[in-house]
Amino acid sequence: KKSFRVVVLPGDGIGPEVVAEAVRVLEVISAASQDVELKLESHEFGGCAIDSTGEPLPASTLKACQEADAILMGSIGGPKWGVNSKVRPEQGLLGLRKALGLYANIRPANFASDSLLANSPLKPSVAEGVDIIVVRELIGGVYFGARQELGAGAGPEAETAWDTMVYSVQEVQRITRVAAQIALQANPPLPIHSIDKANVLASSRLWRKVVIETLQAEYPQLTLDHHLVDSASMLIVANPKKLNGVIVTENLFGDILSDEASVIPGSLGLLPSASLAGAPSVADATSPGFKPTPGLYEPIHGSAPDIAGKGIANPVGTILSAAMLLRYSLGLEKYAQAIESAVRKALDTQATGGLELRTADLGGKVTTKELGDKVVEIL
Amino acid sequence: KKSFRVVVLPGDGIGPEVVAEAVRVLEVISAASQDVELKLESHEFGGCAIDSTGEPLPASTLKACQEADAILMGSIGGPKWGVNSKVRPEQGLLGLRKALGLYANIRPANFASDSLLANSPLKPSVAEGVDIIVVRELIGGVYFGARQELGAGAGPEAETAWDTMVYSVQEVQRITRVAAQIALQANPPLPIHSIDKANVLASSRLWRKVVIETLQAEYPQLTLDHHLVDSASMLIVANPKKLNGVIVTENLFGDILSDEASVIPGSLGLLPSASLAGAPSVADATSPGFKPTPGLYEPIHGSAPDIAGKGIANPVGTILSAAMLLRYSLGLEKYAQAIESAVRKALDTQATGGLELRTADLGGKVTTKELGDKVVEIL
Ligand SMILES: CC(C)[C@H](C(=O)O)[C@@H](O)C(=O)O
Ligand SMILES: CC(C)[C@H](C(=O)O)[C@@H](O)C(=O)O
Repeated sequence: KKSFRVVVLPGDGIGPEVVAEAVRVLEVISAASQDVELKLESHEFGGCAIDSTGEPLPASTLKACQEADAILMGSIGGPKWGVNSKVRPEQGLLGLRKALGLYANIRPANFASDSLLANSPLKPSVAEGVDIIVVRELIGGVYFGARQELGAGAGPEAETAWDTMVYSVQEVQRITRVAAQIALQANPPLPIHSIDKANVLASSRLWRKVVIETLQAEYPQLTLDHHLVDSASMLIVANPKKLNGVIVTENLFGDILSDEASVIPGSLGLLPSASLAGAPSVADATSPGFKPTPGLYEPIHGSAPDIAGKGIANPVGTILSAAMLLRYSLGLEKYAQAIESAVRKALDTQATGGLELRTADLGGKVTTKELGDKVVEIL
Repeated sequence: KKSFRVVVLPGDGIGPEVVAEAVRVLEVISAASQDVELKLESHEFGGCAIDSTGEPLPASTLKACQEADAILMGSIGGPKWGVNSKVRPEQGLLGLRKALGLYANIRPANFASDSLLANSPLKPSVAEGVDIIVVRELIGGVYFGARQELGAGAGPEAETAWDTMVYSVQEVQRITRVAAQIALQANPPLPIHSIDKANVLASSRLWRKVVIETLQAEYPQLTLDHHLVDSASMLIVANPKKLNGVIVTENLFGDILSDEASVIPGSLGLLPSASLAGAPSVADATSPGFKPTPGLYEPIHGSAPDIAGKGIANPVGTILSAAMLLRYSLGLEKYAQAIESAVRKALDTQATGGLELRTADLGGKVTTKELGDKVVEIL
């Protein structure tokens, strides 16, 4: 049996509750599989780590993450470590992304089940069939360029603050390749939509040029179009299906647009994400010479302090993150699909009274554990 | 009679068609008014100016704009002057904004008439009652900071490109004041929502600090909250009414979020915009010592080359821009309201067959001129 190390970072707020269900799912897979074994180990990260060690990303946690084949995270943060605190949980997240070189953030926005259509803020006719995968560059751009705080400059400069949005050719090449490989996992391959602001920004002109050249040279079979970020943000509301396929974009635009797209399915509790340090695995875990792609997987929702401890958070986003972990890091596509189909079935299950199994975010009364139980049972 | 100079820039594509209707509306006001006279004069700007002079913003047009009390624009651009052309219409627009110091872009997103609710991509329950005014900083930030193109740097720098997102205290103070004055034009005053990315960007931390301090010192009666740009982009789709009131934000975020909000009413053809070189007029045009606030007014839609020349474009956005011109530049609130109410009535008019008066963008068959006729008739 091939063995993989999965580090689990439950985090803060509802993090531990939703992670617990995803861990059960992974344990079921591990126990049932003939070929692979998953070794799970938990570490402190985020606010809870600040409380116990003073740092959101303690050295021991970082070390475990560096040695892991993949990482499953819950959510971090909370009012206790707010914007005015000196040490904040997000610093740990940005630090972990950078330390592990997690340059590719992958966020699907789609309906895990058609029965969820009614929860969308969009009209059913607009929302139905939306199936977008956002591939966001995660460790470049204005997030990591040089910056200067107010008061730090000399003379009149002291009255200004600035950040630098910077990209290199190589950074854009590698994220373009990730987008291409994700597009190619579908049959027929998905179209690629590159988003930039090339009519204004030099970094966007570099972006557009490199995306075009990389795809032409390496993936000529893929279709590519370009949208300005302002018009993409309109399209995501007005006619999101026009962006079905793979959106590839830089860090800040990806932050804004992936969040925008993620509300289409009606609850943030439903959606997973992956952050990869390389192109996603295409080979099967059992194929000779297989090497996992290190990655961090987490639901897109926050730590939701208002409902933490109540056991009512939606575990679907975290369970689907575990499925992505199997797919993109560990080359276990068939188990990923098994989990996704179990989730779909669970969401489509009619509970007593003819209602579907729904957690509070979707207007239901089912608990985190009950929904987890159902997924595990179906699996 | 007080006399005001209004420069008209019809521009490209459908620009001249929609501007023609707004000009008729302004002429009706001018003819009917006891106190004011509007002197309208047209100039070339955008693609048509490139064709005749080689430049999108000819010196004579710029001079006329600098001497005007207000400017009414149609729309510029088209496939003839695309991204690969050396001289592009947008350069004229960015140049005009900068040359006139138009630092405050004001874009309402609301329903001119409740009868339009069905056109929204959002569910009626989500869209109904949305009433957001975006106040975007327009001549600072990453649009006008230092930048370097790919290939321009030395050594390994040549493989990168960058832009600088920069703000000074003074730039944020003045846009905050505009937002405050717009909030105060309503009774009770509107809440202010400041949008930034203060958890990552130094320029956003400056932004947030200065917004807080300026409002506390000068407008303590206004309520203020803060949203990160990613979460604001979610809220605009998921629950836009939470952002009802005045959104104030920096240039790039404003570009993205104002476009996102503008699709809520169902057609870009409906919405106006203003770009001001100072705080909006509060005094009445006829009050002693009144001085107009220079401003550029334009519908938010583009030049729509596909329907140009057909006479079917929606003139409402341009007519409402003319109303904003009277309000914010010329201190003619009562005429602004008269136009807005005429537009509402025209949109609510049942045409033969029981259908409302609708242009093609809203699924109707009414022409640009027929809708303009109706507004003029009601006025
Ligand atoms: C917490 C914050 C720094 C982070 C980001 O902006 O990248 C978050 O919004 C995300 O998208 O993961
Ligand atoms: C044409 C373009 C440069 C411009 C901008 O980004 O400001 C446009 O999108 C706008 O919002 O007026």
